[in-house]
Amino acid sequence: MHVLVIGGGVIGMAIAYEARRQGWSVTLVERNHCGQATSRAAAGMLVPVTEAQFGEEEMYHLNAASLDRYPEWVERLEGETGIPLHFRTMGTLVVARDPDEWGYVKHFFELYHRLDPAVQLLTPREAHRLEPALSLNIAGALYSPGDHQIDNWQLIRALREALVRGGVQVLEDTPVERIVLADDRCTGVETARGLLEADVYVLAAGPWTHQIPDVREVLPIPLRPVKGQVLILKPTATAPMPERVVRGFQAYLVPKPDRLVVGATQEEVGFDPYPTAGGIYTLLEGAYEMVPGIYDMTLADILVGFRPTTPDHKPILGPTPVENLVVATGHFRHGILLMPITAELIVEYLRTGQVPTALRSFLYERFR
Amino acid sequence: MHVLVIGGGVIGMAIAYEARRQGWSVTLVERNHCGQATSRAAAGMLVPVTEAQFGEEEMYHLNAASLDRYPEWVERLEGETGIPLHFRTMGTLVVARDPDEWGYVKHFFELYHRLDPAVQLLTPREAHRLEPALSLNIAGALYSPGDHQIDNWQLIRALREALVRGGVQVLEDTPVERIVLADDRCTGVETARGLLEADVYVLAAGPWTHQIPDVREVLPIPLRPVKGQVLILKPTATAPMPERVVRGFQAYLVPKPDRLVVGATQEEVGFDPYPTAGGIYTLLEGAYEMVPGIYDMTLADILVGFRPTTPDHKPILGPTPVENLVVATGHFRHGILLMPITAELIVEYLRTGQVPTALRSFLYERFR
Repeated sequence: MHVLVIGGGVIGMAIAYEARRQGWSVTLVERNHCGQATSRAAAGMLVPVTEAQFGEEEMYHLNAASLDRYPEWVERLEGETGIPLHFRTMGTLVVARDPDEWGYVKHFFELYHRLDPAVQLLTPREAHRLEPALSLNIAGALYSPGDHQIDNWQLIRALREALVRGGVQVLEDTPVERIVLADDRCTGVETARGLLEADVYVLAAGPWTHQIPDVREVLPIPLRPVKGQVLILKPTATAPMPERVVRGFQAYLVPKPDRLVVGATQEEVGFDPYPTAGGIYTLLEGAYEMVPGIYDMTLADILVGFRPTTPDHKPILGPTPVENLVVATGHFRHGILLMPITAELIVEYLRTGQVPTALRSFLYERFR
Repeated sequence: MHVLVIGGGVIGMAIAYEARRQGWSVTLVERNHCGQATSRAAAGMLVPVTEAQFGEEEMYHLNAASLDRYPEWVERLEGETGIPLHFRTMGTLVVARDPDEWGYVKHFFELYHRLDPAVQLLTPREAHRLEPALSLNIAGALYSPGDHQIDNWQLIRALREALVRGGVQVLEDTPVERIVLADDRCTGVETARGLLEADVYVLAAGPWTHQIPDVREVLPIPLRPVKGQVLILKPTATAPMPERVVRGFQAYLVPKPDRLVVGATQEEVGFDPYPTAGGIYTLLEGAYEMVPGIYDMTLADILVGFRPTTPDHKPILGPTPVENLVVATGHFRHGILLMPITAELIVEYLRTGQVPTALRSFLYERFR
């Protein structure tokens, strides 16, 4: 079987990787360079619990199942490429700056504690003892000790390397100009490199998935970009790195071996690719009020990403009305976390022709 | 006479320009590209009054005299190059956010009003009426209607263009490796392009002036860099440009035809070339609290400059202990404003061999 994957973010790359493991012939087309859009702007938090929302149990279970798959993926990717992914347990402190925010944190504590009894509420002093970089001028914090994270920049490098080493044809700088359809089947994909043909096609172009010519018409996916601005800070001698993930209501701080990621705005402004004064101000204020030591850090970069988002904030995974066209997009804030389970479920569907039970809540048909 | 100018900021370029007008043969060497360091990071405010300090009357008079020279320079440069410099009267609002800052503003009002009787104090409502972009949540403002500004990016372009058109030899990417001295005279300048010889040499390398090998030893100028971080914002449909210069205690906003310059930190950290989280946060907070509309503006760029600064915050202009070596640096916050008078006085000294009266307070010898 020949599989063609459209989109070289972590979702597209992971599907190509998993398909190749079946022994299939795999081509991946990416309009720019693999992993340099949404995947790069992510923070790599793998936190099903502290990302859980009331009434979104399905998402929690999918997220938790994907996290369970991570150790095996990490071991395999690191083994094949030698690229360390810095996958590790790193507790999260959810910080309330004032009584108002503290009310929210206590409210969410009920949910988080039900999902993981190790989650606890801390006084400002307890939180500060746990994380000396934290301001004492807070109302309280919630601690989730079992959270994980991964270095998403390293993950991007490793996935791409594993694809190339594994014999996947990776075609970068190759935008799809048209999807060729005939009798409810996809017969090819037109690109600047000519017509590419395969047996099955996987649409994994993130927030741009429904903008591919012809996809727009046959597959009117209700997808929108949610802009996120992100700061990359570098610690200095006078501004040491926090040791834990610190999350607040205006910003989160995620320490990586070589950088501190401060994210992220959540803006409904379409594909505006520029950082804004207000977005950066909001992140810096939020980060500074929780971890004052960031003041002296170098501002090394500003990233802008676009989360592929659906009306119910759940991804769209699996079959489409076009027989041999499969979709995997709409991962919103959870693309890095959902990478393993997405790839495994999509490939299981391609292999068996049966929709796995775990996919049923995430099918495209719920929007028809 | 052959003059060699070291340094391609606005000061060096203006001296080369004025020297060329005398009919002299002129060479300018610049280690990078003309005007792309301190001059580019400036905001182009030409405001002798609202930059005046108690007890610094000499600086005020030099600044005011330089502003008087500006219209003639602008007319000549625009005429020769066709590059518009956007030299114009643009009143300054000095904004106090709280009673504490209002106390300072009223204190400085005494000085400013003595220098220019048109300067007045405004209530928040009066200030807002004058500048609709201004927040009403302020304690008061001072208005200086007669201030000027220029687009310093255009000025850089025009100066360079005028030099090349006028027959000045402009050597960029040409760091000075050594100044050759013999018997208290300079006999040449070694560069990657070989030895360059002239009759007189002008040191105008801004904060790097005393770092040139050999200069360090014979001319121990007490010069330090004062770092300034600057934001370049772009107005959008929902975030219109303020119509006046708005200055506060944490930031100033200077509208240009194509951008809003928000400056500037003043940091004693040596030549650290990176923006910092705290520096950018401080500017954004200061700007936002005065002009909330900046929130939606695009953050187009972050610049870092280094003001050449002396212990008394006055420039060092004129002769040195080396007979045919002249210096022009230490302009601190006033390089753009002091450009015309600096060039004219230095060239007058070169022409006559006499130290002009106006230079007497700014000689190198005050530090020996």
